[in-house]
Amino acid sequence: MSAVRARAFLRSRWVEPPEDVEELDPARLAPGFRAAGVACGLKQDGGTDLGLLACDAEDVRSALLLTANAAAAAPVRVCRERCDAGAIRAAVVNSGNANAATGEQGYREALAMRNAAAEALGITAETVAVAETGVIGVPLRIDDVVGGIDEAAARLSPHAAGDFAAAIMTTDRAPKSCTVSAGGVTVSAQAKGAGMIEPRFATMLCFVQTDAQVAAAEPLLRDSVARSFERITVDGQLSTNDTVLLQATGGAQRPMPAGLLEAVLLQLALEVVADGEGATRVARIEVREAADGAEADRVARAIANSPLVKTALYGRDPNWGRIAQAAGAALAGEALADLGPESIDAAGLGGADAEAEISIALRRGAASGHVYFCDLNHEYVRINAEYTT
Amino acid sequence: MSAVRARAFLRSRWVEPPEDVEELDPARLAPGFRAAGVACGLKQDGGTDLGLLACDAEDVRSALLLTANAAAAAPVRVCRERCDAGAIRAAVVNSGNANAATGEQGYREALAMRNAAAEALGITAETVAVAETGVIGVPLRIDDVVGGIDEAAARLSPHAAGDFAAAIMTTDRAPKSCTVSAGGVTVSAQAKGAGMIEPRFATMLCFVQTDAQVAAAEPLLRDSVARSFERITVDGQLSTNDTVLLQATGGAQRPMPAGLLEAVLLQLALEVVADGEGATRVARIEVREAADGAEADRVARAIANSPLVKTALYGRDPNWGRIAQAAGAALAGEALADLGPESIDAAGLGGADAEAEISIALRRGAASGHVYFCDLNHEYVRINAEYTT
Repeated sequence: MSAVRARAFLRSRWVEPPEDVEELDPARLAPGFRAAGVACGLKQDGGTDLGLLACDAEDVRSALLLTANAAAAAPVRVCRERCDAGAIRAAVVNSGNANAATGEQGYREALAMRNAAAEALGITAETVAVAETGVIGVPLRIDDVVGGIDEAAARLSPHAAGDFAAAIMTTDRAPKSCTVSAGGVTVSAQAKGAGMIEPRFATMLCFVQTDAQVAAAEPLLRDSVARSFERITVDGQLSTNDTVLLQATGGAQRPMPAGLLEAVLLQLALEVVADGEGATRVARIEVREAADGAEADRVARAIANSPLVKTALYGRDPNWGRIAQAAGAALAGEALADLGPESIDAAGLGGADAEAEISIALRRGAASGHVYFCDLNHEYVRINAEYTT
Repeated sequence: MSAVRARAFLRSRWVEPPEDVEELDPARLAPGFRAAGVACGLKQDGGTDLGLLACDAEDVRSALLLTANAAAAAPVRVCRERCDAGAIRAAVVNSGNANAATGEQGYREALAMRNAAAEALGITAETVAVAETGVIGVPLRIDDVVGGIDEAAARLSPHAAGDFAAAIMTTDRAPKSCTVSAGGVTVSAQAKGAGMIEPRFATMLCFVQTDAQVAAAEPLLRDSVARSFERITVDGQLSTNDTVLLQATGGAQRPMPAGLLEAVLLQLALEVVADGEGATRVARIEVREAADGAEADRVARAIANSPLVKTALYGRDPNWGRIAQAAGAALAGEALADLGPESIDAAGLGGADAEAEISIALRRGAASGHVYFCDLNHEYVRINAEYTT
């Protein structure tokens, strides 16, 4: 693989990859993986809407994080109940239909989708994860999906990361994917997400492949997700379908360099925020001097999800009063010192930065926390008033 | 007083006043009360921005509910710390400046404003409530306010309820006020509010005057507020300035008829929702079969504050999947049966009703709850991206 311009992907001011990181051709998957993306007919515009991802190695280590939404979609329930989360060889994904709130029929179809992929790949069903994204509450056209799986299985290629990333998109403006290397290992990753974003355990969908040797995939993934996808919000809406899958072959016979996975996931998470439906700007709210970490997190989320703060970010209005109001609302009933301009830095709201920094000091303790969010504007309203069942 | 057309004000499908209710001239205050509204120069457009309300009777019974926001505005703190909540004779209110997040100087100015009103009226300072609404974090021009208080005191009139209601407006499209009678008593009330609305104990500002005999003003007010202002949301934002004041002279020598105060407050609360910045429609979400009342409330608020549900209400999209998602997010980690079209009635989102009804049955118990909310649309974004410090 040839290196492309450094930091073409890992470009956020908030992302800190290992010093020796190189960005590789993003169409190329990490060694040992193949993928495909095809159009099976779920999307009305004929776009690619079925992705298949497969690992050639039999003894892959994996970790799978799923949404905490109590109305979790059928594919999430299939993954939770019917998959061997630590040994996932392949993933089958469709966009255009979330297969959520579809009852027992939806569950049977997610299972059928998973089983069709296992059969097409000739591997055990429990080693195949299934993910779906799109409209909620509409029955899945399973025959179209199964046809797409057969076509995708015939087209699997180590150069098709871009096709796979495109096939899992819904309202995303562009695919979100990268291939990077550091410390002798390669990581490729693809994500999607633009609306209904405030992941609790994961984002909408994210797939990560690596040839690194990973002793304990789940703690590694949880730790990186806690500092990336779990720190973003677009509209405060925990999805029914959030899924993150990490697969590691160990083929490079090197460990994952410190900070590499987190850098990749944080940049992807920031791409999701930047692509928040209609978003024009991304901001980071830092809450300092909180009584404890949970309080810092609660206040940061209240500020990040306030439509008043989000419209101020859009209108470039350094309106620190709205930050004080949101913090006070999150701490309703608690004692709080006067919060004035000496405690709140809202200049970033009003500036020209595409990545704005704002902060508040609560003067209640020594803990801190932060959340990344985007502005709320006319395009969010247009997309969500027009996007329909 | 002469009766006007029945239900000109009490017109919502969800408001149930006593059968003998009559609507009176809304400019006229309840017997024993006088008011005024003048322009003191806080509003850039020269609109009226200072209201004064006074009760002629010395032994008035009153109750005062104030926001729970931990960053409560200076006037709220003055009311909490320096007023005799059960014996409020008068209220002085300005719009255009919330005097919130203004520190000790703001507190001194709210106190000076309250004291100036007491002096102008010749009554004890502790019997005067103070309320302010408008931008946050801007110093109050106290000299202008004091000048306005003197002018207003000279103009007090029993026919100036409309002037008072106009003087407390900010982004409201129209004044919100009424004068009604039933069971031999009269109630007049004025409210304001359009954005930053999810009252916990009160709305932005609401003043209620009556000649009814009220033995315990606070329980009566709390009970009615719990079923009106505490059931609405515009944007999920608990304000820094919420205040509700009830004053009762007892002059009618009759008790408050059952349901009258609640009907008045609920209609005013619905006016606030209907005037939610840019709102085109009002909806009522009913959550049934919840495990307990707190759960019903939590789920109802999650649905009412979801920007995805609010944009669907705007776009007339009966998108029940977004209701399922919001309910599932509110119940994250809990066991939840499949929520499909048999459990969710979202038809109201798609209909033509200005007052839409939607519902969800959680199948977890026997409790229910409801919240009133409005749509989210371009106008909310425009108002809040342009409204500035």
